[in-house]
Amino acid sequence: MYQDHQGNFACGPFHVAAPLALPPLRVGLLGLGTVGGGTYRVLQRNGNVIAARTGRRIAITMVAVRNRTRAASVVGDDVALVDDPFLIVNHPDIDVVVEVIGGTTLARDLVLRAIANGKHVVTANKALLAEHGAEIFAAAHVQGVVVAYEGAVAVSIPIIKALREGLTANRIEWVVGIINGTTNFILTQMRSHGLGFKAALEEAQRLGYAEADPTFDVEGVDAAHKLTLLASNAFGVPVQFDKVHTEGITALELDDMGLAERLGYRVKLLGIAKRTDHGMELRVHPTLIPDDHLLAQVHGSMNAVLVKSDAAGVTMYYGAGAGSEQTASAVIADLVDVARVAGTRHGDRVPYLAFQPHAVQALPVVPMVDGVTAYYLRMDATDPQLAVPQLRDCLAAANVHVERLEVFATADDTGVSSLVVLTHLARESDIRRVMANLARLPTRVGGVHAIRVESLV
Amino acid sequence: MYQDHQGNFACGPFHVAAPLALPPLRVGLLGLGTVGGGTYRVLQRNGNVIAARTGRRIAITMVAVRNRTRAASVVGDDVALVDDPFLIVNHPDIDVVVEVIGGTTLARDLVLRAIANGKHVVTANKALLAEHGAEIFAAAHVQGVVVAYEGAVAVSIPIIKALREGLTANRIEWVVGIINGTTNFILTQMRSHGLGFKAALEEAQRLGYAEADPTFDVEGVDAAHKLTLLASNAFGVPVQFDKVHTEGITALELDDMGLAERLGYRVKLLGIAKRTDHGMELRVHPTLIPDDHLLAQVHGSMNAVLVKSDAAGVTMYYGAGAGSEQTASAVIADLVDVARVAGTRHGDRVPYLAFQPHAVQALPVVPMVDGVTAYYLRMDATDPQLAVPQLRDCLAAANVHVERLEVFATADDTGVSSLVVLTHLARESDIRRVMANLARLPTRVGGVHAIRVESLV
Repeated sequence: MYQDHQGNFACGPFHVAAPLALPPLRVGLLGLGTVGGGTYRVLQRNGNVIAARTGRRIAITMVAVRNRTRAASVVGDDVALVDDPFLIVNHPDIDVVVEVIGGTTLARDLVLRAIANGKHVVTANKALLAEHGAEIFAAAHVQGVVVAYEGAVAVSIPIIKALREGLTANRIEWVVGIINGTTNFILTQMRSHGLGFKAALEEAQRLGYAEADPTFDVEGVDAAHKLTLLASNAFGVPVQFDKVHTEGITALELDDMGLAERLGYRVKLLGIAKRTDHGMELRVHPTLIPDDHLLAQVHGSMNAVLVKSDAAGVTMYYGAGAGSEQTASAVIADLVDVARVAGTRHGDRVPYLAFQPHAVQALPVVPMVDGVTAYYLRMDATDPQLAVPQLRDCLAAANVHVERLEVFATADDTGVSSLVVLTHLARESDIRRVMANLARLPTRVGGVHAIRVESLV
Repeated sequence: MYQDHQGNFACGPFHVAAPLALPPLRVGLLGLGTVGGGTYRVLQRNGNVIAARTGRRIAITMVAVRNRTRAASVVGDDVALVDDPFLIVNHPDIDVVVEVIGGTTLARDLVLRAIANGKHVVTANKALLAEHGAEIFAAAHVQGVVVAYEGAVAVSIPIIKALREGLTANRIEWVVGIINGTTNFILTQMRSHGLGFKAALEEAQRLGYAEADPTFDVEGVDAAHKLTLLASNAFGVPVQFDKVHTEGITALELDDMGLAERLGYRVKLLGIAKRTDHGMELRVHPTLIPDDHLLAQVHGSMNAVLVKSDAAGVTMYYGAGAGSEQTASAVIADLVDVARVAGTRHGDRVPYLAFQPHAVQALPVVPMVDGVTAYYLRMDATDPQLAVPQLRDCLAAANVHVERLEVFATADDTGVSSLVVLTHLARESDIRRVMANLARLPTRVGGVHAIRVESLV
């Protein structure tokens, strides 16, 4: 009767306990919210199957919470509940601290204290690592402890493991991802229900896909945090969140999504980290991608990360971009890794940012104005016959080449037409020149709209 | 000037050599064909970046080849070329043996000898492990050595790592994959160019996507080998290739692909490992999947594996399903893992089949006749008004429920119509009864066609 590790049959822990050579890994959990609660729940439910894989139990022995009464109804009697999270990071009987309280102030203090006390750390806190990663990883290196953060990047998708280990033979050329579930959900709502941004956001909030204050998500900050970590793992550069060019989706118009679709494209909020001859591009912005591309089929709150590397070619990783147990899946995978390497030489472990600490070195980041991408441009006009030659002149004057130019009648029957251009690859500075010149055209109606285009090949 | 690990700047190995604490991992390569040659090439090209990640060099020091003269033009002077592969598996200065000669006889002897000599083994040989995995893993366990095989399953996609480590917190419900590049290429050719199977196969052979003897690929054997390994890693069961129900694509008709498409489906050759209340389903067969599913967008020789698990939900892994450097990417990732764990306790390593050896236990495999799936059924008839009620009677008599029934005129203007049924979930034995009864119908023209349907949710 060894089916117990399948979870199909009721059984006590003794079925797997007998052959386990090592004592349980003692985990202190900071926070019992969405991710913390999910982590506790999954470890309870799948404890046997996890131990059967790991050869060791993962035991949450202490939990720091704000409300001990409510927490007591969630966790069992074998868990010590404390109000003060510092009791956990300072406790001698804790091997690893799981930080899932969020934020970058208290969380930073706790993580640094845990490290100073020689404890391994697992966190799903992207903001903390994107902003304080350099300090945290340096401290951890000195102490010889693990800081693992799979849950901080693409929730359920083991993308950090894929980048750091699965693709370790490769020179990685670029990483492109849909790495924010909230904005992808909003974009999907806009497209499938013809909602404007505001209405789609409200729907996302109503359904629990967006927070009451959605700023970090819709302005692209959350995606930029994650992109920072992806770029570091892909290219062996320090975390440098302040270098990411970040545009959100708040200004995106439904008309542009519709016109893009008529040209064979979809609009997605992408995080893009790309190595070029002039340095590294790090940018988050709405992007037109071909509608027959796999990434264009990633709907709702799902995430996906596409990686181009020199030996493996293109690989893609897809999964839930939000969720309690979805994030817990990554947090526990990190705990199992910690259980395995806790007894090993620090130098034998997978480095924090894929590369050995001495080999992590900054690459220049290409200023946006020097970046080169294709562009979707839209200008509305009452008299296309007059406006199209003017538009062409503006593009030619800035040396921006036209791949395609289409004129669409607008749906509202105002006699206004939309002039839409897909450009060849062009320098951002040249595009800005085009936009400035178009803004001066007397035939123009309304604003000039520009969205970058990526072919993803 | 530490950009050297980016490969952008010419530099000697001393840039990374200085901080490397460990001597190089000494690799003996058995075979210098497609995968072996690619492995050597990628290690040469990306040696610096790999060492910067690993903290240790991976050095191919010996290669066994049939033609030493030709091999000498490929590898450098620092590599010892030998005719006899046993010289490598017996050599005291080899830490790890990479087996990429293929086959299941000599390869088995070499791998077992290497293990007996205490060497770690990396292989991309799916047939070897699917057929002799139990013996090989048992021997390796006794010797305390690693047997790694990422390249054996989905080429460039780190799916074994995802299953064994990334999803280790999960109870896995099913694994479904397009895991044979040749057949997916053929199916893509059939669909996009309207070719019959034979013509598409010839095209695949001409372009190098199919071998001169394509039997293993087109009959589904290769996919069954890979499915065997996926199932073991998902469910903690021993490798049991002989239990996989295997159907290839040789009997697949273009007409059925076209009709499926009109119903909103695509036909893919899938490997399916699913846990049910009655045991495990293990099957490889052509399958209708919804055309808006991500897996339906996997074209040409690309592979993808979809995993459903209880905490992470659905995740998908996509990448090249063939290729020299694509496979080398996985082989080298395994070598880096070996480099990291070579000095650790055997019990701290990731187990061969995801679960600790004592926890690997067979689950009953559901006999195909007891399996339950939805079905696409097609029968041609000259008089649909007569045939449709007969068809409905046959289905009802076997207790098979109709989800959808459509009548299509055939393209060739013979007056023959195609009656197509999508069934609800039905027992395989009931479907076989329906087929037998349909075959007796006098209104029927030609054979009765049946393809399983999976919703993949």
